Amino acid sequence: MRLEIEPLTAARFAPFGTVIEQDGSAPLQRFDLVHAHGGRAETPGFALFTVAAAVSLPLEIRQLEIHPHSAQTFLPLVGGTSLVFVCEGGPDGAPRPETGRVFRATGRQGVCYHRGVWHHRLSPLELPSQYAVIMTHAPEGEDTVLFDLPEAVLIAGDAAAG
Amino acid sequence: MRLEIEPLTAARFAPFGTVIEQDGSAPLQRFDLVHAHGGRAETPGFALFTVAAAVSLPLEIRQLEIHPHSAQTFLPLVGGTSLVFVCEGGPDGAPRPETGRVFRATGRQGVCYHRGVWHHRLSPLELPSQYAVIMTHAPEGEDTVLFDLPEAVLIAGDAAAG
Repeated sequence: MRLEIEPLTAARFAPFGTVIEQDGSAPLQRFDLVHAHGGRAETPGFALFTVAAAVSLPLEIRQLEIHPHSAQTFLPLVGGTSLVFVCEGGPDGAPRPETGRVFRATGRQGVCYHRGVWHHRLSPLELPSQYAVIMTHAPEGEDTVLFDLPEAVLIAGDAAAG
Repeated sequence: MRLEIEPLTAARFAPFGTVIEQDGSAPLQRFDLVHAHGGRAETPGFALFTVAAAVSLPLEIRQLEIHPHSAQTFLPLVGGTSLVFVCEGGPDGAPRPETGRVFRATGRQGVCYHRGVWHHRLSPLELPSQYAVIMTHAPEGEDTVLFDLPEAVLIAGDAAAG
């Protein structure tokens, strides 16, 4: 399966989450972070995350992850463009990579994945790359499920301009 | 009253809050955001905030603010150094500017003010300047109290190197 890269816009990304970006309309823009965590009220936390290795195109996506109980926000602090891969899940809970979409986020665009959205791990195209990651403060790994795809999804390099 | 600028370090800032900064010891560093909001469990939110005007030294501080029910985190997304002024409060709840301290934060250092810590508004020394502001999602202004100081605090420019 081969997938073309789309530009990241709020409308395109709406089924999967929120684009965190100032549109220039106001000096202060508020965003909701829906950090429902299985109905339990918990203190959210965040982490600063430096990604050591960039990805390059064409990219083979072989593993996806999901947080069944938490929304998750990535906000770029340092760095340039990243790839954001998302797909729907099936009735059995497994990802359906054939529904996948991949977006090119600029270094000024963050994303908040809705709770329970399958996605690929942080995929910066350039280094250095540092993000703030905001989500409910669960013990390490408690709310992360990994899934190895039986067949890789190929992100094409030619349509990089979106 | 005239105050010299200190470098921002976790130890110096500990009475007032947390310094949000990667120290290079690990690619992922977690921080607690204590968003107690008067005991009520609320969804935290955040905002992207672009500051239109920088401050210059010497700086006269004439107004302080406090959030009685919320911690508040500022994370620089774009920009350079900022000044961070904090002081203790008295038994009457008013700020005691004579206890004030002022820190120079680099463009890679965020701060999380503890709940109920008097502080000066965002004070970037350079533009452009954009921050992510993370705090409990209260209606505009609900948890912000402003206080006009009877006498300005003067932040000296000469000791800028800390």
